Amino acid sequence: MGKLFVVGIGPGNTEHMTSYAEDILKNCDVICGYITYINQLPGSITKNVSHIYAYNMGEEIKRVQDAIKFVENGNNVALISGGDASIYGLASLVYEIIENTTVVEVIPGITAVLAAAARLGAPLAEDTIIMSLSDLLIPWETIEKRIKAYAKIDVVCSIYNPKSKKRNWQLKYLVETFYRERGNLFCGAVKNAMRVDEKIKIFTLEEFDYDFIDMSTIVVIGSSNTYLKNNKLITRRGYSL
Amino acid sequence: MGKLFVVGIGPGNTEHMTSYAEDILKNCDVICGYITYINQLPGSITKNVSHIYAYNMGEEIKRVQDAIKFVENGNNVALISGGDASIYGLASLVYEIIENTTVVEVIPGITAVLAAAARLGAPLAEDTIIMSLSDLLIPWETIEKRIKAYAKIDVVCSIYNPKSKKRNWQLKYLVETFYRERGNLFCGAVKNAMRVDEKIKIFTLEEFDYDFIDMSTIVVIGSSNTYLKNNKLITRRGYSL
Repeated sequence: MGKLFVVGIGPGNTEHMTSYAEDILKNCDVICGYITYINQLPGSITKNVSHIYAYNMGEEIKRVQDAIKFVENGNNVALISGGDASIYGLASLVYEIIENTTVVEVIPGITAVLAAAARLGAPLAEDTIIMSLSDLLIPWETIEKRIKAYAKIDVVCSIYNPKSKKRNWQLKYLVETFYRERGNLFCGAVKNAMRVDEKIKIFTLEEFDYDFIDMSTIVVIGSSNTYLKNNKLITRRGYSL
Repeated sequence: MGKLFVVGIGPGNTEHMTSYAEDILKNCDVICGYITYINQLPGSITKNVSHIYAYNMGEEIKRVQDAIKFVENGNNVALISGGDASIYGLASLVYEIIENTTVVEVIPGITAVLAAAARLGAPLAEDTIIMSLSDLLIPWETIEKRIKAYAKIDVVCSIYNPKSKKRNWQLKYLVETFYRERGNLFCGAVKNAMRVDEKIKIFTLEEFDYDFIDMSTIVVIGSSNTYLKNNKLITRRGYSL
């Protein structure tokens, strides 16, 4: 029996991966992952790995089942997740499927919103809500209910998977709901945070730039404590200055 | 004019720091930080740094002002935060104080709850609320209002600074509020996640172990999708298995 490492590889650029994650990837027998993330790994990391398996979107269950099979055959396997291993990652699916949980180790990574926030300024200073608008695994009715609840709370809210080609009206519903409950707020959006083609934009709920947003964008909606200074989005911690 | 790097050093153990953060620390002229975090940095990182300044708790404003002064004098300065640079870190205070924001770079790190979640299993799988119970910078009335709001939403909630020697009843208020709104839920607590003396405990709201909790503990309260399997706390992503 080998070990199964569920590895958060961070936002994409290898320099924002932890040394521990890098070490595991360099020394494992097998790497399994979504093809886009596999392609992000440089040769310096993968050169001594015997087998690398790239999977398509939607093949998450097969990916995990294969990884478990490789572990049962005695291999040390790294199953990679973009960002963190847990948040919208594969760690929970691994634990749901695997019988022998003692062979699993979860290795955290920089989740997308931490990368995006660093680029925007410091919008995440205190309490924060992290949400996804993807309805692939959660019914829209649940997401809608959550949006209504989140909109009532005056804390920063970050949105993963804000919009896709097929799913294009939900973000507008969210923005309008937040605006109705809390008035105008500063927002930031980072596309491909800490990857090639990174793009940053700051606007408000009133002037929300829907066209800028795609699946690779993280949206951060500020609280009433969030303000703009020299084009940086800042949420006050509460220090008396 | 030098540069001011606000560096998230991760949960404590250097191997969970990103290579980029490590590189900045190794090559800067000055490191400023809370004494506990300064002491966590190994000699391999600090050996070529000319000046290292350790500060006490409560000296956050002085720490930032000093760092800015060193930058103005032409030094490249790393101001370190435990975990991430932003979440309950120093990045927002830096932006609040500094005039010339163009010299600032925020470097994300593994925030405590990602480390704690990795140890507990996979409780953070989808939407999540991150909150702090510290009333040093936010009045209790605001925290109380947030607790009532968070308690009504069926998502995982993670708590930073759950309890201190002086502040010992607020956590009980939170647990009772959550229990009243949502019934019994699985919870996990990790003390010193990914540091020496790490301790992990899983229980429920009904059997909440207050004595286990201190300021170095992260508490994760599950949602109705969170369950226990072989002593691992898992939140279902929603895949049909």
